[in-house]
Amino acid sequence: MATPGSYELFYWPSIQGRGEFVRLALEAAGAPYVDVARLPAEKGGGAKVLTALLAETSGGGPFFAPPILRHGAVTLSQTGAILQYLGPRLGLVPDDEASRLKANHLQLTISDFVLEAHDAHHPIASSLYYDDQKPEASRRADLFVKNRIPKYFGYFERVLESNTAADGHHAVGVALSYVDLSLFQIMSGVGYAFPRALARMTSKLPRLVALQESVAAVPAVAAYLASPRRIPFSEHGIFRHYPELDP
Amino acid sequence: MATPGSYELFYWPSIQGRGEFVRLALEAAGAPYVDVARLPAEKGGGAKVLTALLAETSGGGPFFAPPILRHGAVTLSQTGAILQYLGPRLGLVPDDEASRLKANHLQLTISDFVLEAHDAHHPIASSLYYDDQKPEASRRADLFVKNRIPKYFGYFERVLESNTAADGHHAVGVALSYVDLSLFQIMSGVGYAFPRALARMTSKLPRLVALQESVAAVPAVAAYLASPRRIPFSEHGIFRHYPELDP
Repeated sequence: MATPGSYELFYWPSIQGRGEFVRLALEAAGAPYVDVARLPAEKGGGAKVLTALLAETSGGGPFFAPPILRHGAVTLSQTGAILQYLGPRLGLVPDDEASRLKANHLQLTISDFVLEAHDAHHPIASSLYYDDQKPEASRRADLFVKNRIPKYFGYFERVLESNTAADGHHAVGVALSYVDLSLFQIMSGVGYAFPRALARMTSKLPRLVALQESVAAVPAVAAYLASPRRIPFSEHGIFRHYPELDP
Repeated sequence: MATPGSYELFYWPSIQGRGEFVRLALEAAGAPYVDVARLPAEKGGGAKVLTALLAETSGGGPFFAPPILRHGAVTLSQTGAILQYLGPRLGLVPDDEASRLKANHLQLTISDFVLEAHDAHHPIASSLYYDDQKPEASRRADLFVKNRIPKYFGYFERVLESNTAADGHHAVGVALSYVDLSLFQIMSGVGYAFPRALARMTSKLPRLVALQESVAAVPAVAAYLASPRRIPFSEHGIFRHYPELDP
């Protein structure tokens, strides 16, 4: 299916979701990869390929959920684990161990934020529709916007500020890392879901705003974002825009 | 504060919480460590030491939340990252890379479960009291018990089943790993919070039940669990027993 040495990503074909953090890394590095579930079924794609792989017990499985990355004999899941694996191979993390440990714990904190962002519109259960939990979502989103986004984004702003080697532009080291790409993605996601709330916060987040702009301007990222490979944000993913949750 | 080579754990001093996954690994391995925030203030302990460390920008910081582990020049946060660091050093993960990748993605899935377990009683916000979100907690806990615990525990049961080398007793490899310790902890936590619900499920989870018993019988773990170092479960932690949520 994939050429030797190339990466195979398995993720739901119609949403950005958690797979987007992996797509951004592969795209920014110009790495050869196949977004397998987005291929037509006759070319070995489709969501069924993905659900079959979840149960696969050879390699590292079974797996709880996508994204899943396959690379040669290695198969692994969990966004943070995949990015930790890809980082050194794609040149998206510094060489030294301290920077790699730091990148990993930052990425895991981003994963926590992503779960909270999802539950802002699905506080009761992901198995229920949003319409079945609107009053609860309203309460949760209100506090997510007032307390949690400022707490997480304020933290990431301090991370950028404290990395004096990079003059505030990078989370770890002095060059683009997978953490920068992931911070771009959560800034973009919050900007989609809660544009009014984010607009009220950005004056306190100058480094995150500058990082988001600089990542979007990386040529490989800009080309990806303008391509059909970038699935649009929608009300099926993690970051959803329901105007009533962003008054 | 700590003897050379020993580990320093920083976590809230009055709850098991996420710190317990790290405590279990250190205790099972008989590793020298200091549970710093549990020391009296005059010996350099207390919660203030912890909150000061969160803001520390030398080493890998700043950090978003505890647990934090300090070991020599290394300081890192996030439970999964800490256990990935400790595993090889404590002999709690196999030597081969495939097993280490697998242990890591399993642990990150356990972290996701822990966050969901917490939000079963705090679906609106951790900044509010349980009493301020009881109707919502009732809805969420009902679906957590019916759908999410079976989904996660059924998955971990399959993980144990598929590790044929260990005859169903270990998640990775053929010996005790930090993943086994963490599975013990979530089984124990669910058994504390939802004893009636768990009792209805255990016939379908024979390997998880056997793993829980075998981990509890590891001499170093048994000694720890019987000691005052093991903080009891309570209604301040991740796993809380509210009878109305476990009808």
